[in-house]
Parts: sequence; structure tokens; C-alpha cells
Amino acid sequence: MDDASVNEWLGYAKSWATHAGAMMLEAREKTSFSEQYKSGHELVTSTDLAIDDYLCEQIKQTFPDHLILSEESSPDLELATHSDVPVWVIDPIDGTINFAQGLLHVAVSIAVYYQGQRWVGVVHAPFLGETYSAVKGQGAWLNGTALKVSGRSELRNAIVATGFPYNKDTLPDLIELLGRVLEHSQDIRRNGSAALDLCAVARGQMDAYYESVKPWDMAAGALIATEAGAKVGHFSESKQSWPTAINGDYLIAATPDVYHLLLDVLQVSKK
Amino acid sequence: MDDASVNEWLGYAKSWATHAGAMMLEAREKTSFSEQYKSGHELVTSTDLAIDDYLCEQIKQTFPDHLILSEESSPDLELATHSDVPVWVIDPIDGTINFAQGLLHVAVSIAVYYQGQRWVGVVHAPFLGETYSAVKGQGAWLNGTALKVSGRSELRNAIVATGFPYNKDTLPDLIELLGRVLEHSQDIRRNGSAALDLCAVARGQMDAYYESVKPWDMAAGALIATEAGAKVGHFSESKQSWPTAINGDYLIAATPDVYHLLLDVLQVSKK
Repeated sequence: MDDASVNEWLGYAKSWATHAGAMMLEAREKTSFSEQYKSGHELVTSTDLAIDDYLCEQIKQTFPDHLILSEESSPDLELATHSDVPVWVIDPIDGTINFAQGLLHVAVSIAVYYQGQRWVGVVHAPFLGETYSAVKGQGAWLNGTALKVSGRSELRNAIVATGFPYNKDTLPDLIELLGRVLEHSQDIRRNGSAALDLCAVARGQMDAYYESVKPWDMAAGALIATEAGAKVGHFSESKQSWPTAINGDYLIAATPDVYHLLLDVLQVSKK
Repeated sequence: MDDASVNEWLGYAKSWATHAGAMMLEAREKTSFSEQYKSGHELVTSTDLAIDDYLCEQIKQTFPDHLILSEESSPDLELATHSDVPVWVIDPIDGTINFAQGLLHVAVSIAVYYQGQRWVGVVHAPFLGETYSAVKGQGAWLNGTALKVSGRSELRNAIVATGFPYNKDTLPDLIELLGRVLEHSQDIRRNGSAALDLCAVARGQMDAYYESVKPWDMAAGALIATEAGAKVGHFSESKQSWPTAINGDYLIAATPDVYHLLLDVLQVSKK
């Protein structure tokens, strides 16, 4: 992909993410959002939907021939990922529950996926004042500062971020997995935003992260972590036909040394 | 206890906490702290010790007849809690691992315990710019704004904060407990600071919190949560002889409705 196009995508992604962040700040300030639950207990607010509308509108106007893969409005993975045009993979609010609870770990996530690769990733967290970005092969940044993963080499002293799904069906397996990770690491953290967990690995605040998430939760963060020197992969084989680069099933990201140690623990525990 | 004394204690606690916070900010800014592990894998930094020195010195100079119960320098519960003078219960850094990792959930916790009661609590989080405080019977505040717990009444939609100990011996029981809580609540959060988890309940960012912690982790936060309208108690009987007000064994804090629902889940799961 040519640099000019990729940097144009980055510029738009940052600009739209900043505007989306301002919409979140305003909605919280005025407590002007409504809440509803989809699929039983998965929260969605009117702000998720308003930001989704805004982002989709911007993308369609600016790049009418591109596709959009969005949590709220167009979650059709098959359509979006088997086409031959750039795909904007967006999550208007990653950490919707945190947004509703008044917590800080809330982000808009915007990635561009094309020809099997992640090219651009932007994760903007308005309540933390943090804008993470990355371009394939060009590094990762937080508010203009280059990012690098921690130097952690032992799992026993590592801090591992993880999360749990809205759907409780797989809970027994996840709890067994968590028990093994807690046994072999220093501790876990559960912030409630996959995108920001991946950025925390990129930044060295976390030493590792694992969770099964959706493409819009991880596409931008995975590129940011990779470009900061993390190893990003999967600890089990996905049953989905989605391309690896935007498949969040059994996702693992860590410093290169911790990656292999954590992978061993996660793979043993699936038996 | 007379108001003048209690408000004098509050004033000193806030002032000392602010100074302690500045010490943390400076140490992180300059990355000028060293790390070591006590009792195997429990991290302590030179900043924990420097702040402990500072606080103990201030307390001894200002209130020479008071006692100190501190994580780092005088963790003798029997001595401190069975005396008839006010006891300053302090944690120089609650969230030491977060401090070392560059994470935001880090606080100094200062409480005054006297005649079986918590009288004053201050939790100051310098990287978040948050100062929580409470006086028995007079309410709780964040940076001058009165605090109130959330209106959450159902456990199924509640966000529950919790934590895990450095010592891994009790891990199997804790994992079983966590599985049940995850099954019956919306989700958990693990921020890595007990003091700030209790303040998050006070503020309505979390709907509940449970964990077994030490007196210096909970004395201030428990008062702040109580004064904001939380119900604070214990979900199992402690084997310690420590007074209830500063006993962090099996601690639970929640909105009044969620408290009873979570208590049922925690008590069933101990079988």
C-alpha cells in the first residue's frame, strides 16, 4: 500500500476519533444519553449509536468505495472481509459499560484493514486524554510519543489484562483459564476496554493481554501493540472463517518473552 | 469524639496525603525509585518506604501520643488496636504494582481509628487528580463534591470490583468465588487498588466491591463508602481478633440493595 493513502487514512481516523471523543465528553457532562440492553444483557447507549452514525457518515462521504465493519450498524464480517477494497473496522464506544458507569476506560477504535493486513489503527480515550495510533511498519504513538512494550521477561512478575464476555455460556472455561493465569503471573487487571488493554501492552503498562473479542474491539489495538514491539497472536484455533488480522478469537498480545510463557499456560488450561 | 479534634485530624490527613501524592508524581516523573520484593513476590518500592517515613514522622511530631498502624513500618495490629489513643492507619502506596507499571490507580490512604470507630478517611490518587475524604457522620467528598453510591438495585446489572492477594495459597477458593460473582453480576473490574475500589463504590462508578484486604488498605475507603451511603460489612467470619472497623477480612461494600444480593452469592459459594 502506498504511504500517501495510508497516511491520509490515518489523518481522517485521528480527526474522526477526536470528534467522537468530544461527543462522549459532552454526553457524559450533560448525562444526556439513554441506555438499553441488546441480546439480553449487552448494554448499548444512545451515544454508541450517535457516534456510529457520525463515523459511518464520514467514511461514506470521504471514501464512498470503501466498506465499513461496525459493531452497531454493519457487523457483517463475511461481506466486509472478503472484498477487495479497504474496510474501516470501527467501534464507536469500546467500554460502553464504563461509559455508562462514569469510569475512565472508554475509547473509540478505528482501524483500516486491506488485503489481509491492518494498515492504520487509532484508539482515542477522551476521559484519559490519550490518543494512540499506529501505521503498519511505521511504529506506534501515544499523543505523539513513540510506544514500546515493557521489558518484562518472566510471567511470574507480569501483569496480565483480560476480560469476560456479556454472554455467560463460556464462563466455566474462562474461569478455569483465569485461575491458571493468576497462579502463574503476578496479577491480572480487568479495565473493561479491550482496545485500551492492547494499548496498555503497547505502552508497557501491562505486560500481556488475552481475551476473545470481536474484530472492532481489537483491529486498531492489535496494530498499535504490534507496532510497539508486542507479539500478537491466537492461543487457540478459531472456528470462524474471518481473516486472522481481524479475528479476535483467543487473542493474545504480550512482550515477546512473556508471550510464549503465557501461551503455554493458556494452551495447557484448555484441556 | 469532639468535632474540633476530628476536623483537625482531617486537615492534617489531607495535607499529608497531598504531599505524599507529590512524592509519587515526582518519583514517576524522574523514574527515580527502586523495586524489591518482600515475602516472595510482594513488590515494595523505595517510594513506598520514603512516603511511609514522611507520614510517620509527621504523625509523631504532630500527635506524639497517637499510635500508627502502617503497612511498611509498624504492622503490629495487636499493639495498635487495643490501646486507648487514636490510631493512624496508613498505606503509603495502595497499588504499588500499578505505581511501578505506570498505571493510574495508585493512592495514599490515611485513616484515624479511635475507640472502635473509623473517624477520618482520606484517599488521594495523584495520577487521577482525585482526593476522597470522609468524616464519621458528616458525609464523603471527592475534591469538594459530595459523594453518593449508585442507585443500582439488581446484581445482574451491577459492576463488581474485586482483587486477588500476592499470596497464591487461597487462589482456588477465590477463583470459585469469582466464577459465581461473574455468573450473577454484569461484570467485574480489577483496578489493583482496594482503597480506590471502595471510593469507586462511594462515587457510584462501581456498584459493589469484595475482597480480603489488610486494615491499611480499607480503613479510609470503608469510611468513605459508608458515608456515601454504601453498606459495608463482612461476608464471612474473620479468624483474627482485630476490631471489626479495621478488619479487612472478607470485606464487602455495595449499594444497600446489591449488598444483600451479593452477600447471598458470596456466602453460598464458600461451601
